[in-house]
Parts: sequence; C-alpha cells; structure tokens
Amino acid sequence: MSNIATTPEPPYYAVIFTSIRKDGDNGYADMAELMISLAKKQPGFLGIEETSNDIGITVSYWTDRDSIQQWKENSEHIIAQNNGRTLWYEAFKTRICKVERDYQFNSSIDN
Amino acid sequence: MSNIATTPEPPYYAVIFTSIRKDGDNGYADMAELMISLAKKQPGFLGIEETSNDIGITVSYWTDRDSIQQWKENSEHIIAQNNGRTLWYEAFKTRICKVERDYQFNSSIDN
Repeated sequence: MSNIATTPEPPYYAVIFTSIRKDGDNGYADMAELMISLAKKQPGFLGIEETSNDIGITVSYWTDRDSIQQWKENSEHIIAQNNGRTLWYEAFKTRICKVERDYQFNSSIDN
Repeated sequence: MSNIATTPEPPYYAVIFTSIRKDGDNGYADMAELMISLAKKQPGFLGIEETSNDIGITVSYWTDRDSIQQWKENSEHIIAQNNGRTLWYEAFKTRICKVERDYQFNSSIDN
C-alpha cells in the first residue's frame, strides 16, 4: 500500500523511475521489496511513492544528490546481480530532479 | 495507454502529481481526458506519464516554469468549475521539479 510521501519544505530531490515490465515475475517482487527496504535505511531518504498498471512509476525523495548517487549504486548492483535489466524491464527511464516548489490538498484538513 | 515520455536533454521541468481519489467517477474520467488534451496543446508541453492503482501518479514534462504556471492556472480552473477538489480527491500533492539528469534503457536498442 503506497501513499503520498511526507516531504519537507523544498528544495529537496526526486528520482522519477518510469518502467515498462516484461511478463512474469522472475524474482521482481522480492527485489522491489528489498530495494525499498534498503532505500529506507539509506542516509538522505525522505519517502517513496509507487504505483503501476500498464506502466510503473516510482518516485523516491531525497535530501540531496549525493544520497541519490549512493542509492543508485546500490540499486544498480542489485539489478546487475540478478541480470534484472534484461530479465525484468522492457524499458525504463530515470530522471533526477530538484523539487523547487510543492503544494497539497487534504480533504480532512483543508475543508 | 500511457508510455514512457520522450523528452529532450536536461534541463527541463517535471510536475509530479500524486493523488488519492475518492470513490466514484463523478465526471473524473472525462475531466482527466480533457486536461491531457489541453496540456498537449499548451506551449512548452513535452510529454506525460500516468498510472494508478491505490494511488495515482501523473508526471507531466515541460520546457520551463512559465509553461507550467499557465497549465496550472488552466487545470485549477477546470477543477474549480467542477468543484473537483472535494468531489474527486481525498488528497493530492503537486511537486514542481527541475530535471537535472536522466538516463534510460530500452531492451530493443540497448541489447
């Protein structure tokens, strides 16, 4: 169960990971769970949002780019160990972004 | 059917819209379609990715922040006209980001 991530006042960083999966699990679900648990232990981690149907979008939030770089190295290591790039993904794109502004609405607070 | 958006070399901008819907359609699907068709006509629009299950994530890509501002005003107008903020959404968060770096993998190209 994903939720809207609680993040501090900008600026902070976001990694947008958009993917198209190949058919079959092939260990993907276990890996995804492992990656998220590793992210949560990583310095600089702020939160994560993820959802999927025909495509998957996972957005993780971080305090700074150095934290993202460390996380990227860990993630790529896991993917490489599992030959996951070709096993799990038809295609993916990763975008590293600086969040400059944000605003929100919550029906239980704002009404 | 959403897909991975084709975007130019960074820098460019992203709007991450994460939402939790209320039950029932209440005109939401028609509005979502209208918003996307308006976005595509808007100056500075680069592409859009969207997916949902328990939460929805829509990421739109733009050349610059002025284009986002115009799009935001149009979107808020449509939502306000339909009383959509309280009708459609339990909660949402919008994050405006500068994409500083990106990289990708495509199994039909990279293998």
